Amino acid sequence: MPAKLKGNLIVGQSGGPTTVINQSLAGLVTEAARHDGIRNIYGALHGIQGVMKQEIVDLRSESPEDWERIARTPCAALGSVRKKPAPEDCARILKVFQEHDIRYFFYIGGNDSAETTNIVAKLAEEARYEMRIFHVPKTIDNDLKVTDHCPGYGSAARFVALAVMGDNQDNRSLPGIKIDVVMGRHAGFLTAAAALARQDEGDGPHLVYVPETVFSMERFLDDVARVHEKRGRCVVAVSEGIHDASGRTVLETKEKDSHGNVQLSGTGALGDFLAEAIREKLGRKLRVRADTFGYLQRSFPGVVSEIDAREARACGEAAVRHACAGDAPSGSVALKRVEGKNGYKCETFLTPLPTVAKETKSLDARFIKGTNDISDAFLEYARPLVGELPRMGRLRGARIQARNPGAGA
Amino acid sequence: MPAKLKGNLIVGQSGGPTTVINQSLAGLVTEAARHDGIRNIYGALHGIQGVMKQEIVDLRSESPEDWERIARTPCAALGSVRKKPAPEDCARILKVFQEHDIRYFFYIGGNDSAETTNIVAKLAEEARYEMRIFHVPKTIDNDLKVTDHCPGYGSAARFVALAVMGDNQDNRSLPGIKIDVVMGRHAGFLTAAAALARQDEGDGPHLVYVPETVFSMERFLDDVARVHEKRGRCVVAVSEGIHDASGRTVLETKEKDSHGNVQLSGTGALGDFLAEAIREKLGRKLRVRADTFGYLQRSFPGVVSEIDAREARACGEAAVRHACAGDAPSGSVALKRVEGKNGYKCETFLTPLPTVAKETKSLDARFIKGTNDISDAFLEYARPLVGELPRMGRLRGARIQARNPGAGA
Repeated sequence: MPAKLKGNLIVGQSGGPTTVINQSLAGLVTEAARHDGIRNIYGALHGIQGVMKQEIVDLRSESPEDWERIARTPCAALGSVRKKPAPEDCARILKVFQEHDIRYFFYIGGNDSAETTNIVAKLAEEARYEMRIFHVPKTIDNDLKVTDHCPGYGSAARFVALAVMGDNQDNRSLPGIKIDVVMGRHAGFLTAAAALARQDEGDGPHLVYVPETVFSMERFLDDVARVHEKRGRCVVAVSEGIHDASGRTVLETKEKDSHGNVQLSGTGALGDFLAEAIREKLGRKLRVRADTFGYLQRSFPGVVSEIDAREARACGEAAVRHACAGDAPSGSVALKRVEGKNGYKCETFLTPLPTVAKETKSLDARFIKGTNDISDAFLEYARPLVGELPRMGRLRGARIQARNPGAGA
Repeated sequence: MPAKLKGNLIVGQSGGPTTVINQSLAGLVTEAARHDGIRNIYGALHGIQGVMKQEIVDLRSESPEDWERIARTPCAALGSVRKKPAPEDCARILKVFQEHDIRYFFYIGGNDSAETTNIVAKLAEEARYEMRIFHVPKTIDNDLKVTDHCPGYGSAARFVALAVMGDNQDNRSLPGIKIDVVMGRHAGFLTAAAALARQDEGDGPHLVYVPETVFSMERFLDDVARVHEKRGRCVVAVSEGIHDASGRTVLETKEKDSHGNVQLSGTGALGDFLAEAIREKLGRKLRVRADTFGYLQRSFPGVVSEIDAREARACGEAAVRHACAGDAPSGSVALKRVEGKNGYKCETFLTPLPTVAKETKSLDARFIKGTNDISDAFLEYARPLVGELPRMGRLRGARIQARNPGAGA
């Protein structure tokens, strides 16, 4: 393998956005501009769909200031796509690469994107068309294998922790039962981040339900009743993917809609369903509310973990460095924890594409506590990823003795 | 009226929380500590409910550092309440005041809180029990009369503007139709703030529906279809209070639930209903999603307009100063715009309680553009209140010419 493969570079973004996915893009493009082997730097609009349709833009014309602004802008600046390519699509992709003398392909995305790069890498090898093909990790779900965590997760987890922290104050102000529905169909990492909201005794979330444990509606209602009885209020964080023992999501256990679809994101149905179940069981006079955090978790500007932003950028840069160094024809960038001064430090390393393609990771058993809570081990794992959270204040003022006792309203 | 009325002070917080309501509390307590006439400084837990039940705390024991932290903590540190006192409740409140030698009563809240203070003020006057009774404004809805705007609104409006700004990026990444449901049953100020999210041509929200205009489902579906046809995507901001010509909210035009209730906040029902209506009209293959921003709008930590935080604090301080100066036995603090160096400055002034009690304000006709948009006049009004928003980046890269034309996928 020659050390310097000369040709053009193309990069695409894929899957659900994150608030730092453009950090990876900016890091990648900025790093690429430093390497002689790379001639043109192209961006594919909406991922491989843009490759197939040749909807491709020149990324060399943006200024460094433009890139800084784009890096801090949430969601995919190139546009994203949810598409698993069929075998004929992959053949088409390789053909476009050959037509445009593309020798470097970078795909920023989750496990499906890793699989796409893996397929394209195999095709290129079979065709004896020399390329460097690298996957740059990105998910808010934190469900990629091998890597300690995924760029994008820390910022989304920060949003969830802050949202629940505020919601706990709201619920303390006007007590009742509050359900917060968090993204993550199969992996509970994002829902678990709600537990980072706790600072003082009695703080919510009082109950946390992740998809890694079987959800029982009966147990859930008992849990809520018990917390409400004890505290006069209850904040619940629940993953959109909670399911029964047979794997059916809670909404699937209801009648499906007339089209047989059960949609989990971009709808308030699960929260509303759980709230109604609580009212039915505990009484209609109770104040029961549900919020579904929705797409704000992956797109809210400014709510970013600085560590996450830096690591997302570093992963983009590392992909280009590995590719240009000729370390391997393909691979996925991953993060591992190493000894650091302040207790946390991560480094990038390369892992073969098949190790992260297709399959996903979910919460380790040691991160889960019983059927309705998160362990301290998870909090230790997640804290450095979300960055420092603001310290909530609380009045400690002593109670004044009542006068004329017994006349209370 | 003697210049220095001596006695104890009590303060309460009422209604839906905001992220800066504790700024008013901190300003009020800090200012009160500077005045000789005020002996003890008490806080009523959960507003007038705490007065009636004599659930009262001493607020002199918190340190200045505690107060700074509490000021930056969202939602009511004293706890809040949604209670309009009955006549016998007001008599009870006055009795508790007399028992505890309370001569200063401050109530931080919306128009209902102003009405409560108004009733208590009348009762105190009738009983010839000398008091200073002041209302400190607070709402995220911005629906109080007299004042230019309400403390609490700027920060909630900032949250909405940022949320829609991020959602516009999300929708650009993965195009489709997206509905964002914003709080505000009768007043459209908060929904209108979504329009602050626009920065570049083509940015959403593409459609904005406020409760001040009659909502027609037919027109709505035509609007969405037209925008989607033109742009391939559509971001809609809609108030939870949109209603037909007869005043029935959109959900009320559906069959009510078995209990006859229509709940607007803390549920995703309106968004889901509108999304389903779009799918029915425009086809089930379309990607249609709905998010309901919910309680995050009033409780998310850190998303605060600095101007709003300062003004909330200034209103709390002003209430105490007016009370101690003996300017009037009662009143409500309001804000008015005055000539300022950088184009925006507000000063506090006092307005009689009956001018802000009971009734509310809604969006002026000049702030509304047609049936589905917000005017530039509103943007000028609202911009200084939310503070500077981050500038989103956008790729401008030129398209690369396709090779082998005609073979596109």
